[in-house]
Amino acid sequence: MERASPARPAGTLIESPDITPEELQLAVRNHSMPLEALRYAITPVGLHYLLIHFDIPMVDASNFELAIGGHVRKPLRLTLDQIRSRPAKTLAVTLECAGNGRARLSPRPLSQPWLVEAVGTAEWTGTSLSAVLDEAGLREGAAEVVFTGLDRGIQGGVDQFYERSLSIADAMRDEVLLVYAINGLPLPPQHGFPLRLIVPGWYGMTHVKWLRSIMVIDREFAGFQQASAYHFRTKDGDPGAPVTRMLPRALMVPPGVPDFMSRTRFIDPSAVVIEGRAWSGCAPITGVDFSPDGGASWVAAALEDSDSPYAWRRWTIRWDAARMGDFELCVRASDAAGNVQPIETSWNLEGVQNNAVQRVRVVVGAAEARQAAADSL
Amino acid sequence: MERASPARPAGTLIESPDITPEELQLAVRNHSMPLEALRYAITPVGLHYLLIHFDIPMVDASNFELAIGGHVRKPLRLTLDQIRSRPAKTLAVTLECAGNGRARLSPRPLSQPWLVEAVGTAEWTGTSLSAVLDEAGLREGAAEVVFTGLDRGIQGGVDQFYERSLSIADAMRDEVLLVYAINGLPLPPQHGFPLRLIVPGWYGMTHVKWLRSIMVIDREFAGFQQASAYHFRTKDGDPGAPVTRMLPRALMVPPGVPDFMSRTRFIDPSAVVIEGRAWSGCAPITGVDFSPDGGASWVAAALEDSDSPYAWRRWTIRWDAARMGDFELCVRASDAAGNVQPIETSWNLEGVQNNAVQRVRVVVGAAEARQAAADSL
Repeated sequence: MERASPARPAGTLIESPDITPEELQLAVRNHSMPLEALRYAITPVGLHYLLIHFDIPMVDASNFELAIGGHVRKPLRLTLDQIRSRPAKTLAVTLECAGNGRARLSPRPLSQPWLVEAVGTAEWTGTSLSAVLDEAGLREGAAEVVFTGLDRGIQGGVDQFYERSLSIADAMRDEVLLVYAINGLPLPPQHGFPLRLIVPGWYGMTHVKWLRSIMVIDREFAGFQQASAYHFRTKDGDPGAPVTRMLPRALMVPPGVPDFMSRTRFIDPSAVVIEGRAWSGCAPITGVDFSPDGGASWVAAALEDSDSPYAWRRWTIRWDAARMGDFELCVRASDAAGNVQPIETSWNLEGVQNNAVQRVRVVVGAAEARQAAADSL
Repeated sequence: MERASPARPAGTLIESPDITPEELQLAVRNHSMPLEALRYAITPVGLHYLLIHFDIPMVDASNFELAIGGHVRKPLRLTLDQIRSRPAKTLAVTLECAGNGRARLSPRPLSQPWLVEAVGTAEWTGTSLSAVLDEAGLREGAAEVVFTGLDRGIQGGVDQFYERSLSIADAMRDEVLLVYAINGLPLPPQHGFPLRLIVPGWYGMTHVKWLRSIMVIDREFAGFQQASAYHFRTKDGDPGAPVTRMLPRALMVPPGVPDFMSRTRFIDPSAVVIEGRAWSGCAPITGVDFSPDGGASWVAAALEDSDSPYAWRRWTIRWDAARMGDFELCVRASDAAGNVQPIETSWNLEGVQNNAVQRVRVVVGAAEARQAAADSL
């Protein structure tokens, strides 16, 4: 069933830095991770970023069944208890929205207006997808696996349940899980209760929530969220490149204390330790560079190991903030595949994959100097 | 220590309906409750609204001590274990931000740009504040109790830890609690770990999070969040009325399915049950009225009882959406103190206490009619 989009559909280009009322409606529902939560290796529930396209479904777990079918030898229906009784695995995985950084683009594509912090890392517990698919038995010619959620709405003029696909090769990877717990507790409604997909390394749109069916197909999936949305395109008509794995990004905990409204940071003249986390879905993080001067000069931060290959790594660097004044701190990650975070935004029609470096304004000063600096903001 | 505000401080009046980049910075951190979560009597953690003025402090509970002092006979220091070993009480309490509805004002005061859903209801577990104050022993002349958090920042040019006061009479009420658990689990960082104040019936600014001290004073408290902020003022220089208890408000779960970007709701022609919740901090809710025609006509909804006098009440009404077309649904609560939700916004300089009725746009139609309706959006 096709339905028209409203007059200003997602993707409309907005020239003004001001946010439209439509974007605000999304921003008050969905939220990013306050940057001070980068202090936690595992993000507490409620601080992890959320993007929910339609409404959060309210699911009665006692009636829940996952259907596995399509191009398989033995279609399955699994209750939640049956899924929970299969071998369990717990993985720490960093998830980031593909649209993270969108609101820093100019012009800005109309959609969820993320700044830089649409990210989080959780310990997800679930069972192997490949084992379930093996049990169902892929038939010859199986090409993709389609994951369908219980969340329904209209996007791009299409009335749809949210759904995405993976190639057979990606779906059969060891680390891909059907999960029912986050940080040791049952999934809360907003994270996909009772069951969701986790595909470590991939952007957030892949990890289908409120999963109700897994269908194997013998062709390329043509659903809206797969074939139309989530592509990197620089002009209309461009077929574009599908969004898949997370590009590298480092974020810092903004130092000092914030001004309520401007979020400008104020610190006393002192040596401070700047800390943060860095991740990439493409390859291990190999370096994090820090700049105290808006990117004019860079120094290497110290990287800590992570217990999970799919979770962010902590980094630290000492910054000698002895000189009073106004500073722009930047941080930049690179990975073993040769990806380096760009200084400038990488503009595209949907506002995806914008991993341009974070910039944090900091005023260093004694009380009097701070006063003068704040007056000139 | 005084510090200047930035060039566009909180409270600046914005004529455009578009949201400024400063407001967006707050909107991506703080979030309201997605309206479909009105289906839950107790809001799951992560869906409850959050407003955090400064940064979320990271607290080591093993070193935590609450100081109780000032105008008392026996100053106390209580560890978290000591607080947890006192008699415990669990109360379901609805909390709403005083600024809920701010973004619907015109002109709009610059601050957190809430629409209508900055609310949530949780089961809070803690111990009686009045028993702690009795143990400390109020000295003659005790006038107010000041609650100070660990969260620090700059607002209105003032470098401050977040703090608010209550009169002795309000602080000694039976239902006022020092809480360490939400929905049966320890407070997560964003809700004030390890300890916060809960003052049932009052707007959110009262429930000081990350509580570190309780000081009894013999005069009126002059702190920024008490004496300057959180007043209903219609013009500069007006002393204004302090914001205290929540005015009545009813909200509905928007029916049907949403369009991703516009959030317009689409439903098939049918009889639907509209449901929601209503609350007031002033007196029990006595009525909820529903309008299918933008407020031209009203019918009474059915009200259900609540287990807690401090929590919202569920309401339902059957709406016969047989006729295709475009509808604006409204809902309006009234309480036993004679307060009725206004149709129009009640403009004021800070954008507080705007409890004007919720309006939800719904398009009713078969597929073809919906197509035509959506085209004209």
